[in-house]
Amino acid sequence: MNPRRPRSDGERTRAAILQSAMRLSTVDGLEGLTIGNLAKSLGMSKGGLYAHFGSKEELQLATVEAAGAVFVAEVIEPALRADPGVPQLLAFCDAYVDHLERLTFPGGCFFAGAALEMGTHRGPVQEKVAEFHSGFVALVREFVRTAVALGQLPDDEDPAGLALELHGTLLAVDTSFVMYGDSSVLDLGRTVVRRRLGVKAT
Amino acid sequence: MNPRRPRSDGERTRAAILQSAMRLSTVDGLEGLTIGNLAKSLGMSKGGLYAHFGSKEELQLATVEAAGAVFVAEVIEPALRADPGVPQLLAFCDAYVDHLERLTFPGGCFFAGAALEMGTHRGPVQEKVAEFHSGFVALVREFVRTAVALGQLPDDEDPAGLALELHGTLLAVDTSFVMYGDSSVLDLGRTVVRRRLGVKAT
Repeated sequence: MNPRRPRSDGERTRAAILQSAMRLSTVDGLEGLTIGNLAKSLGMSKGGLYAHFGSKEELQLATVEAAGAVFVAEVIEPALRADPGVPQLLAFCDAYVDHLERLTFPGGCFFAGAALEMGTHRGPVQEKVAEFHSGFVALVREFVRTAVALGQLPDDEDPAGLALELHGTLLAVDTSFVMYGDSSVLDLGRTVVRRRLGVKAT
Repeated sequence: MNPRRPRSDGERTRAAILQSAMRLSTVDGLEGLTIGNLAKSLGMSKGGLYAHFGSKEELQLATVEAAGAVFVAEVIEPALRADPGVPQLLAFCDAYVDHLERLTFPGGCFFAGAALEMGTHRGPVQEKVAEFHSGFVALVREFVRTAVALGQLPDDEDPAGLALELHGTLLAVDTSFVMYGDSSVLDLGRTVVRRRLGVKAT
């Protein structure tokens, strides 16, 4: 987005619709997202929504795209700002747990839910979810490779294996936090990640 | 179930309905499970289904209960048959991965999907999912405690932390397997679990 150009009314409305669509998706799923229930939650007419998104699939694709931008801003960028290697891995995991804690979305991690929901619904929406998902996993593997190259992690550390472990720990934190609303699992997750990466607890 | 008493037609029908309901839930979600679409998938009348389940909620509760029984039979029981401690943990994780591999359900782990889907839908169905979920996690923690007591794992191993890690690794395997249908993640999961538990790869 070009910061010098003020957003039009149409762009602001579209952004508000997508914000609401992301939140609703984490509660009712991407398949539960319909032009009808979104219009209701926004107090807009269905006709007004159709002016922005021609179909349910178009709305779902735009919602996944918007959620990807949120994930990049809230989780990926803090990781990329950290020092290379283990600090990047730690920043990624901490930023993920932080975005759960601040309730960015009411139903927890957008992509954790979308991945399981859309996994068996092959098509453009599932492909877009998978594209973001595999991009995030590839980035974590890259951080591990860097950490090994810098001698911060043992030579025999398998990037795919450690990425699976960290990804998994974050998924388990998300699942427990969403299900029980108990924030103690957030700290447990932070501790587990530090221990796994050989970083002293703060 | 009493093996000496043959099941009545009504019980057989109920079992067939629940088998179909569990499968459908892992594809369309527990909220996507309606008497209508279940009747359609079974080629039964809605009236026939209402004779077994008076409401959508009753159907959902019975489906969660049935999925709990499947999880116990396919994942918990193999773990309980193993030697105490690390062998139990390993048997639990292997049995979980095996049940994904043999496609017990088309959408992967029933409870992984149900936990994220129902997390924000407070009520009796969510409570029943949470009850099974916390029971499974408590059992894994207990296996860790036994392993520490037997000297198979270090004294400073935190049962809650290791349970979160193993639970997480299994969730990440489930998510990747459901999303990409790529079975190489199953072996990666088996390897990661062995490495974490200090068990030699077979």
